[in-house]
Amino acid sequence: MSINKLLGSKKLTSYFWKTYREDPQNIETESHRLLHRTGFISQLSTGIFSFLPMGWRSIEKIKNIIREEMNSSGLIEINLPVIQPSDLWKTSERLDTFIPPLSKFQDRRDNQLIIAPTHEEAVTDMVAKNVNSYRDLPFTLYQIQTKYREDPRPRAGLLRVREFEMNDAYSFDVDEEGLDLSYKNMIKIYKNIFMRCSTEVIIVDADSGAIGGKESNEFVMLADSGEDVILISKDKLYAANVEKAIFKKEKFEKENTINLQYLDTPNKKTIDELKDFLSIDNKKMLKTVIYKADDEIVGCVIRSDYNFNETKIRNYLNATNLNLASDKVIISKDLVPGFISPINIENIRFLYDDSVLLGPGNFIVGGNTKDKHYKGFNLDQDSISYEILDIAEAEEGHISINESILESFRGIEVGHIFKLGDVYSKKMGANFSNKEGKNQNILMGCYGIGVGRLLAACIEANQKNNSMNLPLSISPFSIYLVALQIKDEKVKNLAEKIYKELTDLGFDLLFDDRDIQTGVKFNDSDLLSLPVRRVISKRNIQNDSIEVFERDTDSTISLTYDETITYFKTNLIP
Amino acid sequence: MSINKLLGSKKLTSYFWKTYREDPQNIETESHRLLHRTGFISQLSTGIFSFLPMGWRSIEKIKNIIREEMNSSGLIEINLPVIQPSDLWKTSERLDTFIPPLSKFQDRRDNQLIIAPTHEEAVTDMVAKNVNSYRDLPFTLYQIQTKYREDPRPRAGLLRVREFEMNDAYSFDVDEEGLDLSYKNMIKIYKNIFMRCSTEVIIVDADSGAIGGKESNEFVMLADSGEDVILISKDKLYAANVEKAIFKKEKFEKENTINLQYLDTPNKKTIDELKDFLSIDNKKMLKTVIYKADDEIVGCVIRSDYNFNETKIRNYLNATNLNLASDKVIISKDLVPGFISPINIENIRFLYDDSVLLGPGNFIVGGNTKDKHYKGFNLDQDSISYEILDIAEAEEGHISINESILESFRGIEVGHIFKLGDVYSKKMGANFSNKEGKNQNILMGCYGIGVGRLLAACIEANQKNNSMNLPLSISPFSIYLVALQIKDEKVKNLAEKIYKELTDLGFDLLFDDRDIQTGVKFNDSDLLSLPVRRVISKRNIQNDSIEVFERDTDSTISLTYDETITYFKTNLIP
Repeated sequence: MSINKLLGSKKLTSYFWKTYREDPQNIETESHRLLHRTGFISQLSTGIFSFLPMGWRSIEKIKNIIREEMNSSGLIEINLPVIQPSDLWKTSERLDTFIPPLSKFQDRRDNQLIIAPTHEEAVTDMVAKNVNSYRDLPFTLYQIQTKYREDPRPRAGLLRVREFEMNDAYSFDVDEEGLDLSYKNMIKIYKNIFMRCSTEVIIVDADSGAIGGKESNEFVMLADSGEDVILISKDKLYAANVEKAIFKKEKFEKENTINLQYLDTPNKKTIDELKDFLSIDNKKMLKTVIYKADDEIVGCVIRSDYNFNETKIRNYLNATNLNLASDKVIISKDLVPGFISPINIENIRFLYDDSVLLGPGNFIVGGNTKDKHYKGFNLDQDSISYEILDIAEAEEGHISINESILESFRGIEVGHIFKLGDVYSKKMGANFSNKEGKNQNILMGCYGIGVGRLLAACIEANQKNNSMNLPLSISPFSIYLVALQIKDEKVKNLAEKIYKELTDLGFDLLFDDRDIQTGVKFNDSDLLSLPVRRVISKRNIQNDSIEVFERDTDSTISLTYDETITYFKTNLIP
Repeated sequence: MSINKLLGSKKLTSYFWKTYREDPQNIETESHRLLHRTGFISQLSTGIFSFLPMGWRSIEKIKNIIREEMNSSGLIEINLPVIQPSDLWKTSERLDTFIPPLSKFQDRRDNQLIIAPTHEEAVTDMVAKNVNSYRDLPFTLYQIQTKYREDPRPRAGLLRVREFEMNDAYSFDVDEEGLDLSYKNMIKIYKNIFMRCSTEVIIVDADSGAIGGKESNEFVMLADSGEDVILISKDKLYAANVEKAIFKKEKFEKENTINLQYLDTPNKKTIDELKDFLSIDNKKMLKTVIYKADDEIVGCVIRSDYNFNETKIRNYLNATNLNLASDKVIISKDLVPGFISPINIENIRFLYDDSVLLGPGNFIVGGNTKDKHYKGFNLDQDSISYEILDIAEAEEGHISINESILESFRGIEVGHIFKLGDVYSKKMGANFSNKEGKNQNILMGCYGIGVGRLLAACIEANQKNNSMNLPLSISPFSIYLVALQIKDEKVKNLAEKIYKELTDLGFDLLFDDRDIQTGVKFNDSDLLSLPVRRVISKRNIQNDSIEVFERDTDSTISLTYDETITYFKTNLIP
């Protein structure tokens, strides 16, 4: 049975659907507004939504597309539990470090359970128990399953929620080459899925975050309402999430080294104040910031024409939390807030962005004394121990590594894929005996699409004039059949006949058979904005014509009954 | 796309499947044993299972049957959250009384959330928000969604678990007549679903339990491994769960009333001891038991030829918990354990089973003094206040209300339906304005099928000789295609050809293309026991024949290639 046939046509008089004139509370995006007004979702709590029948049909169509694409590409569906023992997450060392923190509770035997925010642990456990030999590999498993995450700021309807269905997949390979293949195969599958949902996405380099692993890509739909900032080079050859993006830092000719000297900088605590006061360029100054990375205090230094990228810092330190250190902490380390200097400080680590080595040198840095700065700081001669790496944030206008200007966009992440390698398999004993009979860790990849978020993203991408305009593939119904003057026998009979005939042809119709005002019917129809609307009315019948409105081309044509059936047979694929 | 096509054919060399020779731990039933050995499920924690690919295919087929039957009968699919605010359950007054107790946790804003064990609250909330008028009714909503219950004793694989997918449905009507229709419609749908799964079920009267409401029926598959005790009259006209079953109690001629007199009954505390000591019939004695019903202490009295039915007692008292009172509690009420008497006790309520009024009278009851009983108790003259009702348990051999002998069976509950009436709609404000413009509560029904348990029940019903023997409709694959000597080019090519041709015809095949011992292949095939097995081997090819084994008829036939294709076209419906 096709998905249209399975979901079936419906008559509004026996359906459960209500539209709203009013916007929901705290509306932030068009998709949130339309999901509410079109009767797709009903909020139960912050970031927790019920799906009304209309919304659920679109979700079912999306899930069907995902299943068709994944199954036909050889992926294998499974199902993993939502409720999991804490012990499982101890093994993977994520019990207390997952962000956002796991939701936990005790069962009646006083064992701690968690509500799964993702399923790497459960799937690795299952595979570890059922794979012995290289002959059992490779394969990629997937599921569509509920997850819960204690998001600190659920917002924008389905774009950022606490409970959600995710299509998560996990690949298991014997070697890097196999993992590469599985990863590429998934990129192809994801592209097909997003294409069938009519969502244009770009693939960007991304940070691995709480999931871990070496390599990671996001599928991002560009949209002003998106939370993610994406940098794309003008030549389109480079695209990355700002969390991960790298760029070519500006190099300046090195000045002749001078000796360190104190400067009086009364009350000049910020780079901007200092810049005005000293009338010098940002590139001549260094910014020093003290962070608290979990329990460690770490100093970071960068040339002032750049900003810190905290994700890069957190990843390098392998920290779960990274926050600016308080003045109290700073003072406890014998540093002076506002005038912090990395010079001669030996009780904390200092990370330097590599821009510090790219000239011009003789930098201004804090003097570690109130109202004092140093002039003439040069890393190689004025610091004893340091770590140098890239901790700078790429910004619009920077130059990409392939020498093209970076532009900044906002986007919605609709898919995220990771090369995990042996991060989980090593900890959880998921190994196999190779051809030589030796034990080896399975190499894993993991892949996720948020189903509800994908729907919201499709609405963001397609909406116009207060209408969702979802594409046929994921529109809740294909055709809105409106019968005006439904009490008229002729109208009713013709509408019923068309309803039956097109349903039998494999279309799913929403038949507005309500005995209500024409205006309400058309308002509801415009809001729902199905790909095609057909109108049966007394006047039409008198003219032996049926009105067919194509939303895609914004055109209305009048057809006879037979022409109508032919039209649908040839113009729409059920 | 049909479900077979969607799930697709698979080759074992690129599939994820492992069978086991060993039984799982704590195996209690055949279905548990086979689900483990056939690689359907993998245990993650007590009563929490992952579904391996093979098991998940059967679940997907069951869910597809449910969706087809429900959609084609006009039901409407929705989706309700697993995580819900506690406040919602306060409104329905089930937050602290649901059995088993709800699993709760705090979110980061310190609001309490619960993991839903069922969805009456969420669906009533959604409907209350979206229904105004009688014109919006009736409709029946359904979902297939994860639930979690802190079962005190998870057991027997998928028969009794903590996390499970349930197909739950909820009907919304304007009046009792409508509710009746919805209820009957659901009975029809359930019958179709169970029939398509080849599970013979009987419909029995049942207790409403933690769900509430007036009328309730269970769909029970009779099986020795079942937990439920079912009483069925020999004429098949009456069937009920023992928790609910009623029967015709025996009547005896009333004796002439005598006065109460003390009997010496040294150390005779039980009915059996008393019976032997006094050499009299059970029917001449009354049994008195003290219960703690939540916080209330209640006495219950029954003629000794019957036993108490605690479900009936708990329901009458509207109690969440019912337990035998401890000796300490009994003594605190001035009663003497072992010799409890209802006579002249005014500080607690006494419930009498109506058998006490059916003769012969002049009963022996406790003396409320150590080693003493009374003789000559007659309710009407020896008790001041009492409540009379049916609190007796029906047993095998009792007479049904339609005068047929009751027989006792064990069974597995695979579906449970309830007429809720306005239990939830009243508390949660789910009302509508009727034709006269007056507010009225919506009348609800609720309906549930445990998906995993249904699979386990189907296995219990169909298994024989260490094989599941699932019917074609829910068998993970339709056909097991075995290629022996797979390295032989001719064998491989013919097998691949048949694989492709039958797949194109709409069958889902499991192709055993592994280069392993023949014995292992046949063992796995027997364990999985798909409806049809086809064998391609060198010998067969030499004889221009393909071996087709039909499990249903336990017969093997040899066919040419063309005959084989014709056979499948005519004998199996894909």
